Amino acid sequence: MRYELYYWPEIQGRGEFVRLVLEDADCDYVDVGREPDGYDRIQAVLSGERDGVLPLAPPVLYAGSIVVAQTAAIASFLGGRHGLAPSSEAGRLAALTIALTIADLVAEVHDTHHPTTVEQGYETQKEAARDRAAAFRRTRLAKFLGYLERNLERNGDVLVGSAVSYVDLAAFQVVEGLSYAFPRAMKRMSADVPRFLALRDRVAQRPRLLRYLTSPRRLPFNEQGIFRHYPELDG
Amino acid sequence: MRYELYYWPEIQGRGEFVRLVLEDADCDYVDVGREPDGYDRIQAVLSGERDGVLPLAPPVLYAGSIVVAQTAAIASFLGGRHGLAPSSEAGRLAALTIALTIADLVAEVHDTHHPTTVEQGYETQKEAARDRAAAFRRTRLAKFLGYLERNLERNGDVLVGSAVSYVDLAAFQVVEGLSYAFPRAMKRMSADVPRFLALRDRVAQRPRLLRYLTSPRRLPFNEQGIFRHYPELDG
Repeated sequence: MRYELYYWPEIQGRGEFVRLVLEDADCDYVDVGREPDGYDRIQAVLSGERDGVLPLAPPVLYAGSIVVAQTAAIASFLGGRHGLAPSSEAGRLAALTIALTIADLVAEVHDTHHPTTVEQGYETQKEAARDRAAAFRRTRLAKFLGYLERNLERNGDVLVGSAVSYVDLAAFQVVEGLSYAFPRAMKRMSADVPRFLALRDRVAQRPRLLRYLTSPRRLPFNEQGIFRHYPELDG
Repeated sequence: MRYELYYWPEIQGRGEFVRLVLEDADCDYVDVGREPDGYDRIQAVLSGERDGVLPLAPPVLYAGSIVVAQTAAIASFLGGRHGLAPSSEAGRLAALTIALTIADLVAEVHDTHHPTTVEQGYETQKEAARDRAAAFRRTRLAKFLGYLERNLERNGDVLVGSAVSYVDLAAFQVVEGLSYAFPRAMKRMSADVPRFLALRDRVAQRPRLLRYLTSPRRLPFNEQGIFRHYPELDG
């Protein structure tokens, strides 16, 4: 069965957490947004032209009669199907717990450049962004990364269970994104989260993931996505 | 088996979405935060004194050897166990999709009064809150509620499947919270979301839920929770 991922074609964004699972699991999928008529097809699903639950926003995954939106839910679903999630119920719930906490971190990163409204650009809310980003660097970044570090201390080489899961792929993406967006803040933190950074390095060496990361399918970070590099927000 | 819910004892907050499922399903549970040593026990789980995945923040549910945090994940888990979730895989994923979208709405409501930092009180960020709340009332509130309304149009009397699920209980709580926090904005919206408001009324009549809502276990809304009534943020 061929998966259909609906996500904006110009950015990694939240869709990248799904793409990493699809690529690492070697799934047959189409990245619909990057097809010639991709934008129209995204708008069509958001306007309700397909059956099943209506999604509010991309990413959305169609898998036969299954429709699932929300990044962590999609990654959990795919991980469970393709050997990238723990098999026990306790393990699956632990994985979802961490994945949703990472989703919260991603939302907070987004709000560093859009603290007031997503309807207008960063340029219209730079002052509020400066304040929010300062608070993010001062307390939230260390809180989230310290949390992931502590789970690695408790569990071992991976965040949940005994093998790499979709949650570890998400952790990889978080390191990549934060290192792009907040290089100075991340450098200051690096000594405090050695296990977390080492996990990133191990994940990056997975053959299928490495092949993806060095392919044209891997979009570069930019200032339209979630992880944006605005030096004035990096302290 | 007795469930243990860890959540702050003075507020409905995110924990209320879990309490509603526990109460409607007539589960045996202890609301640990409201025990005499509740605060210490919450701090103990957050500091890692119990086995299993480490939670970043309440709510956290312990169920034998299972640990699960993150509101929507807990509600999904309990709903699946106690007849408050669709039984098919497609239905379960549709429910989780909507539950996580409601969680996003709840996070945006939180940020209307804490747009800059959760480390400091509302009083320190009133100006930014005024801007964020205006944007929330102007576009986001209608976007989220219209989304829920459209899913009801598509699916029928409940948001997912053919019977009330944990997602409908969450929708009930959203109406209650928004009506408390933003009575003027909600009044303006009411004609646009009749199915959504009717769902709230039907859920409120469920016998076990009604018994809970009229008991001392149901805490009142207040200005320490997620849904806070600050008239200056209601337009």
